[in-house]
Formats: sequence, structure tokens, C-alpha cells
Amino acid sequence: MPIKIAKNSGFCFGVKRAIQMALDSSQRCEDIVTLGPIIHNPQVVEKLKDEGIESVDSIQDIKGRATIIRSHGVKREVLESLKKEKVEIINATCPYVSKTQDYARQLSQEGYQLFIMGDRSHPEVIALESYADSNAIVVGSPEDIPAKKYSRIGLISQTTRSMEELRAIVSALLLHCNELRVMNTICNATSIRQQSTLELAKESDLMIVVGGKNSSNTKMLANISQKFIETLHIETAQELDVGMFEKVDRVGITAGASTPDWIILEVYQKISECMGNIGTSINRVEDIPGFKEEEC
Amino acid sequence: MPIKIAKNSGFCFGVKRAIQMALDSSQRCEDIVTLGPIIHNPQVVEKLKDEGIESVDSIQDIKGRATIIRSHGVKREVLESLKKEKVEIINATCPYVSKTQDYARQLSQEGYQLFIMGDRSHPEVIALESYADSNAIVVGSPEDIPAKKYSRIGLISQTTRSMEELRAIVSALLLHCNELRVMNTICNATSIRQQSTLELAKESDLMIVVGGKNSSNTKMLANISQKFIETLHIETAQELDVGMFEKVDRVGITAGASTPDWIILEVYQKISECMGNIGTSINRVEDIPGFKEEEC
Repeated sequence: MPIKIAKNSGFCFGVKRAIQMALDSSQRCEDIVTLGPIIHNPQVVEKLKDEGIESVDSIQDIKGRATIIRSHGVKREVLESLKKEKVEIINATCPYVSKTQDYARQLSQEGYQLFIMGDRSHPEVIALESYADSNAIVVGSPEDIPAKKYSRIGLISQTTRSMEELRAIVSALLLHCNELRVMNTICNATSIRQQSTLELAKESDLMIVVGGKNSSNTKMLANISQKFIETLHIETAQELDVGMFEKVDRVGITAGASTPDWIILEVYQKISECMGNIGTSINRVEDIPGFKEEEC
Repeated sequence: MPIKIAKNSGFCFGVKRAIQMALDSSQRCEDIVTLGPIIHNPQVVEKLKDEGIESVDSIQDIKGRATIIRSHGVKREVLESLKKEKVEIINATCPYVSKTQDYARQLSQEGYQLFIMGDRSHPEVIALESYADSNAIVVGSPEDIPAKKYSRIGLISQTTRSMEELRAIVSALLLHCNELRVMNTICNATSIRQQSTLELAKESDLMIVVGGKNSSNTKMLANISQKFIETLHIETAQELDVGMFEKVDRVGITAGASTPDWIILEVYQKISECMGNIGTSINRVEDIPGFKEEEC
């Protein structure tokens, strides 16, 4: 089969839920905004804007409108401020992210030095930090761990990181404490997508990773894939051209948890055309060879 | 320097303490026994016997005599039985082992599935298991982990294992649970001896590891050393002969936490003789080149 998609590609439970909440709320409320992009996919954010759901960057821009909290969550202080504004709040924080926020609070309250494995500039991590009752330490890799000893360390992870990264951080942290309590908060959807991408990369000549360039989980799929084979990370089909597929027999497609079906389908159709299979009859992502619905 | 000793070789705090407690008690009590060998060094056990402190294997053999609990600790049930026997109990369990027993109880009481990294036939591990309120799982390596998922795992270690082993088990356990709480109970004396042995092995042509063949921490030193260089694990100087040193320039000596100074000194003197340096004036382990007192 020349073109194959990774099992479980595309929207995860948390993203589907956030978008559905936004669409449902827009039926009910006349004026509605999201505080920051609801998910890390510019095309979806643009589409929601067409539905009247604008993304604003700060509380000052809300101006009394009903406000959707993005899937990545927001800082505790931001939520408090929103409550004071007395606007309607629709909290579309992914439940797995909310659970991680709970752990941040719990571990710091129980006296652990909280470590967060993640990207300190990512909104999910910025929000997570705010839930710790004392200063959290954000680490992207073992090199970021301060050269000191702690009595008790509590570790949580940005939900979209990899098990390989978690293992490396855990191994390193064992030298820095007497007690290490690890809450494995890498979400199941993330792990499943990473595993499926890895399997497909091993049997492909070229991998196309589809999703927001600002999407953490999509970038992680590209990282994993490029360890095995040439990999392109694109947002839309417009970034593809015939030349890319000239010397390629087997193309693998994978897509992040925030990539919508219609973009994946356009990518599949464009690749089919580039490879000379014009007029493919596939019109649903589920029908692309290799797809399998995830079991959550 | 042709013969060098690893920093921090020989008796650790827990062993020194246990032997001192035994000797002090023998001054006070006429009839005294240890329940099992007090430490894993047959020569020391033999010497204590000469002082009137016999090692017995079972409660039936105690016959009303004051009883010393060995440094490795005993099962909770055994301690209960001893109390019923109404004999005087001198508890020489290493305080680091006692702390590990406390963790076994605490973690199982808090609902964690307790894992013990260690050797299931070692007296310390047999005792540790008994302190868990529910069934503990003993694992020597990642292959021993049952192929199932647990909600929360609590991990402790036999005090004499290596960090390398702990890391391997921790990495593997991360795939088996949502929460992993690791109490790093590898004792400081163990880690320090392993590190010093590793450093010396790297600059030696032959390593002599001195200590009980039944001593877990000594066996671990031999394991670590033989990854780098030819290594002999001996109990006494009698196991050495000239032939072993014929083609050797630099000999490293290391000794387990239960190896007494007099045996180390005999080994050093025998090696000196074998290497042609007859009449060495060194009469204290502290004076052997390379030795450094540990900071605990």
C-alpha cells in the first residue's frame, strides 16, 4: 500500500470535547470568545472565527463576552480574574490537563518540591506552574535539573511529552532526592499516537506529519518519526508538491491530536494526486488504509 | 603506586554499630546469641563465637538466652515470637534497614502496591516483605515485573543494591502504573563504596574484592568491578598466591561493608609479599595508599 495513515491519527478526546463545547456555547451565547487559541491548530481557530468565535489574547479584550477557557488551561490567577469580571466562563480545559493541575497543587501542598517536565513557554506548562503552592521547577531535559539535592521531589509532565523523555528525567532525578513521586500525566492519546507514528515510520520511505507548527504533541510526533525516516511537518496540503514524492514508494501520514479530519483528508488526496493516483474515492479519514479508532 | 585501596573500604556505620552492640552486650549478659549471622562475614561471626557470642538459626535454639537481632533485621513475626519468649532482645538491625522496613509498612498502608528491589532469598528482603500489610512483589531485575498494570506502585530497595539497577527497575515500572513513588533506600555507605570501587577499577590491572561470599554489598562491588577489569572476590588472604600477580602492575583492593580491618590488612600484606615488597611497614588500613574515611 503506497499511502498509509497511522492508527489513531487526528483529534483526541480533549480536543473534540473543547471544540464541541465551543460550538454548543456559540448556539446559546451571542457574543463569545476564546482566551488564547482554543487548540494549537491555526486552521481550526480560523474556522471557529467564521462561526463567530473569536480568539482574544488578554482579559482586557474580552469586554463582557462569554469566555471559553482553552484546552491547555489557564493560570489560576487568570481564572480568578475572569470570575471577578463576572463573564460567563465555559471551561474547555482538557480533563487530563485539569487532573495534572490537581496533582501540581496536591504535590506542592504535601511538601514535595514540584518538578514539571515540559516546555516552559507552552501555555499548558505556564498554567500548571501556577497551581503549585510553592515555586515549581520546569525541566525540558536532564540538563535543566539544578545541581542540588532535595528531600522529596514530586514530578508531573506536560500531557503531550514522550515516555522516553520521562524516563530520562526520572533517571536523572533519582540522584537528586531521597524520595521521588512520579505522576505519569502523559495522556493516553499522546502515547498511542506516538506509538502508532513510530510503527508507521519504520515501514515508510517518507513521513508526513500533519498539524499546527505550534502544537506540542504534533512536534513530538515529528521528532519521533525523524529518528527513523525523512519527515515533513506540515499544517496543510498547500505545503506539498509533486517533487517531494518522486523517489518515494511508501508514504506514511500521521496527524496530531489537534488536527481536524478535513485537513488530514486534503493531505491524503494531495499525496494521492502527487503519486499519480488521481480520483481517489476516499472521503473519510476512517477509510484511509491503516486508520483505526483509538480505544480510550 | 602498585597497590591501592578504594576510598571508604570496609565496615560501614551499621556494621560497626551491630558489632559494638554485640560486644557491649556480651560484657553485660552471660549467655547471649545472635539469631542468624550478625553480619555476612564468616570470619567475624567465628571471632564473635570465640567471644562467647554464638549464632543460632532458629528461635528453638535460643533457649532463654539474650538475643541479638542481626544487622539485616528479622521478619515482623519473628520479632513478635521473640517477645513472647520473654528473652532480652538487643536489636542491632541497621537503622537504614529499619527505615526501609518503616517505608514498607507505610507504602502498603497508604494503598500502594509495594515492590521491593532485591534478592528474594536475602534475609534483609525476607524481613522487609513481612513489614508490608499486603503482598509485596520482589524483583531482582525488570524481567521479574509481572505483565500487568497497577494504579499506584511504591518501590523500596534492599539497602545494598546499585543505582544502576534501581534506574532500570524504575524505568520499567513507569510503564506499569499511573503513579510511582520511589523511596531510594540504597544506603549511602553502599553508594559510596560502589563509586570508589568503580573509580579504582578504572585505574587498576587487577581488582581484589574482599568480603563474605554471602555478602550482598560485597558481591555488588565485585559485579561493578568486573565490568572494567579482571576481578577476584575473596574472603581471606589465604585465597591469594604469587601466580595471580605475575603480569600485573597495578592492583586495586576494595572491601565490603562487612569486611573487618584485620582481614583487609592481611590481604594487603599478602599482595605486597606476592609483588615482592616484603616487609611493608603498614599496619593500619587507614595507611594503605588510597584510603579515605567516609563522610556519613
